[in-house]
Amino acid sequence: MPDIEAVTPEKDGLPVVDVKEDHDLHPADMADRLENLPVERQAEVLRSMPKERAAQAIAELDENSAVGVLERLEPGVAAGIVDEMDADDAADVLDGLKEGHRNALLRNLPRESSEELRSLLNFDPDSAAGSMNIDLILLDRNLTVDEAIAHMRSEMEDTETPYYGYVVDERSVLQGVISVRNLMLAKPGTIVGDAVKGQAVVKVTFDTDRREVANVLSHYNYLAVPVVDYDGHIMGVVTYDDVMDIIHDEASADLLGMVGADPEETVDTPWLESVRKRLPWLTINMMNSALSACVVYMFEGSIAQMAVLAVLMPMVANQAGNTGQQALAVMIRQLSMSRFDHRKAWMAVLREAKIGSITGAFMAVVACLGVWAFTGTFAVGGVMGCALLCDMLLGAVAGGSIPLIFRALGRDPAHASSIFLTTITDGAGFFIFLGLASLVLL
Amino acid sequence: MPDIEAVTPEKDGLPVVDVKEDHDLHPADMADRLENLPVERQAEVLRSMPKERAAQAIAELDENSAVGVLERLEPGVAAGIVDEMDADDAADVLDGLKEGHRNALLRNLPRESSEELRSLLNFDPDSAAGSMNIDLILLDRNLTVDEAIAHMRSEMEDTETPYYGYVVDERSVLQGVISVRNLMLAKPGTIVGDAVKGQAVVKVTFDTDRREVANVLSHYNYLAVPVVDYDGHIMGVVTYDDVMDIIHDEASADLLGMVGADPEETVDTPWLESVRKRLPWLTINMMNSALSACVVYMFEGSIAQMAVLAVLMPMVANQAGNTGQQALAVMIRQLSMSRFDHRKAWMAVLREAKIGSITGAFMAVVACLGVWAFTGTFAVGGVMGCALLCDMLLGAVAGGSIPLIFRALGRDPAHASSIFLTTITDGAGFFIFLGLASLVLL
Repeated sequence: MPDIEAVTPEKDGLPVVDVKEDHDLHPADMADRLENLPVERQAEVLRSMPKERAAQAIAELDENSAVGVLERLEPGVAAGIVDEMDADDAADVLDGLKEGHRNALLRNLPRESSEELRSLLNFDPDSAAGSMNIDLILLDRNLTVDEAIAHMRSEMEDTETPYYGYVVDERSVLQGVISVRNLMLAKPGTIVGDAVKGQAVVKVTFDTDRREVANVLSHYNYLAVPVVDYDGHIMGVVTYDDVMDIIHDEASADLLGMVGADPEETVDTPWLESVRKRLPWLTINMMNSALSACVVYMFEGSIAQMAVLAVLMPMVANQAGNTGQQALAVMIRQLSMSRFDHRKAWMAVLREAKIGSITGAFMAVVACLGVWAFTGTFAVGGVMGCALLCDMLLGAVAGGSIPLIFRALGRDPAHASSIFLTTITDGAGFFIFLGLASLVLL
Repeated sequence: MPDIEAVTPEKDGLPVVDVKEDHDLHPADMADRLENLPVERQAEVLRSMPKERAAQAIAELDENSAVGVLERLEPGVAAGIVDEMDADDAADVLDGLKEGHRNALLRNLPRESSEELRSLLNFDPDSAAGSMNIDLILLDRNLTVDEAIAHMRSEMEDTETPYYGYVVDERSVLQGVISVRNLMLAKPGTIVGDAVKGQAVVKVTFDTDRREVANVLSHYNYLAVPVVDYDGHIMGVVTYDDVMDIIHDEASADLLGMVGADPEETVDTPWLESVRKRLPWLTINMMNSALSACVVYMFEGSIAQMAVLAVLMPMVANQAGNTGQQALAVMIRQLSMSRFDHRKAWMAVLREAKIGSITGAFMAVVACLGVWAFTGTFAVGGVMGCALLCDMLLGAVAGGSIPLIFRALGRDPAHASSIFLTTITDGAGFFIFLGLASLVLL
């Protein structure tokens, strides 16, 4: 058994009243314990904690819980805690507050903090600026390496991520990045501006999509990537811990988006909000399946003559749907994992077509034999096999192409893709199977 | 437009022959360019590069490509490159090589390296030990802070992640962890053993599942987490960059697993291997949909009398399937994101039941009115509405429960869940709709 005890103190085994007394508790564990309390009690505990500890705990709560408890606190108390939070974490929570609560809280903050937060709140939360940290260590390009080390030592305590120094000119334009490690390894007396000269700085502009930011940082295995404006002035950094959250959110967002749930939905989302968000997609799904039903309706006469068609028809559609979803999942993963490469993407559709043909041919033979044995008529089995092969091939190609088409239309490649796929595989499956059956069997 | 050029040099625009000449190129970008070349050319380029650069590039290639090109190189050349790689990266690649190639390569390595690699290859690649890094900075607990800083400075150049020092006793049992930052902030003269005394060290044992390791590291926002054996001896560390890969793999693995594709499949997986891996699940899907077909077969007589039933029947099943998949996606995300909480999980199923009832009631009214208008018979609409409500509620509960049941059975909660869900929503949908129709309408 893994040494889980050392890692995950069993929540239920611990007396929750300890939350505010145990000063050695990691903020993330403090937040875990808080989340197990009713919200009134959470507010009570936070009120009685030192503000700094309360701020750390709120930063680690999940967003719904953090918003809930801040709305429960008096604006003055809430502002006192928020003022101790890192600006990027504070902005994330404030973004979730109802407008009245947010404004009351901002009015209770010192002028400088409230202005800083208001400016962060203006950024798109899905952009680099929406995830960036504004506490970072700037190094004037004229400093020597030793002066830079001394400066970093003095700033370390107040900085969330003291691993890099950002070398800037007098107008705060980013010149280069230097790690603590490279500073320590550099020859004493070197000017930091010279140490980073010619460096191809990896940076992102403030409006870069956060998914792209995560790709950049994990591509290069950096701890942080600087965020700049259009003129190259440094605005902040996005750090590895934010990126871990982004990667996690985005990858599982695809899972939810694919079936038409809200990409941010969790089991903590209020259930009526989930109803409101899911209902439009269920309605679209209904309209789409009404389209497939129209196809069946066209062949109502054939079904009345030969009811076994209604027995076999859903099997064709279901099998092609599954084939298509496998292709869809592989393609969505590809699009989320790496930079888009046009040729590679369409080669992947070709790959799916090959997989669809072979799996389709295999299942067609199985189905043909099975149906022949079951109905005693080879022709029915033959029709079933042909329809299955065609629809599975179509499903594979559709599953591979839908995310690419959505992307080309400027939509999220994953969102509701499964719903549109099913429409195609159902509609086409019914049409091919019933059409062939009408031609051959009746 | 984001400043993407600074970040993602357009691959196609760059002359690929530059790969080995451009010494400033980041290894990750070098790997990107290599991947665009045919494998013979990749081998040629790597052969002509300094071994150290080649090792960096191979570590950044995706696993399939790295394995492909290493198998193409002569064992002696390949061994020379592998010897320059970090042991954890080397072990990952060697794990993918065919046995003959792997043994030839190991025979060409210096004895010490080959023994190290052989021992790493014995670990489960999905465990902490399978992802761990064995280059780390150990600090004897009797060192002073200043001696520790000097020691870390001297070791930095050879260590992948020089951010933490691991304080050990004479038997290499881990006593505590200290960051460069805290060393720099500590009072000179302090003994490091004292500085970490009483620290609740966050660590994992070597056999901890890598998903759990990722949860631990991202929970605490650490850069690295130490790996120990059952007696507390330090074995290595898992670092944030490995964890970013784990989070990404695991989150998108759920997306693939859910529909019965191999969780590790990408567009680079050889297509015949994909056929082999997907076919068993497609076969299971076929058997499951044959079960649903049996339900329809039971009511063949009713369909023969009233073919419109065959038109409406797939709509019920499809709608309930979509409802269930939304529940499924939310639940799978929950299980992958946080530690399992029994009560919370079943409360989430209840939440899905509520969502299923309300969305089901809404769609039932819409469908009832639509079908009434279309067929001119209220009773057909009523049957459709009732069946839809029941099946959507069932789909929501099944979607929420299936991952929990799989988990309780010791299976991956995501794997093939969608296939089993569809069986339930199809089978039950056909049964309820056709059963009600037979009772009420005929």
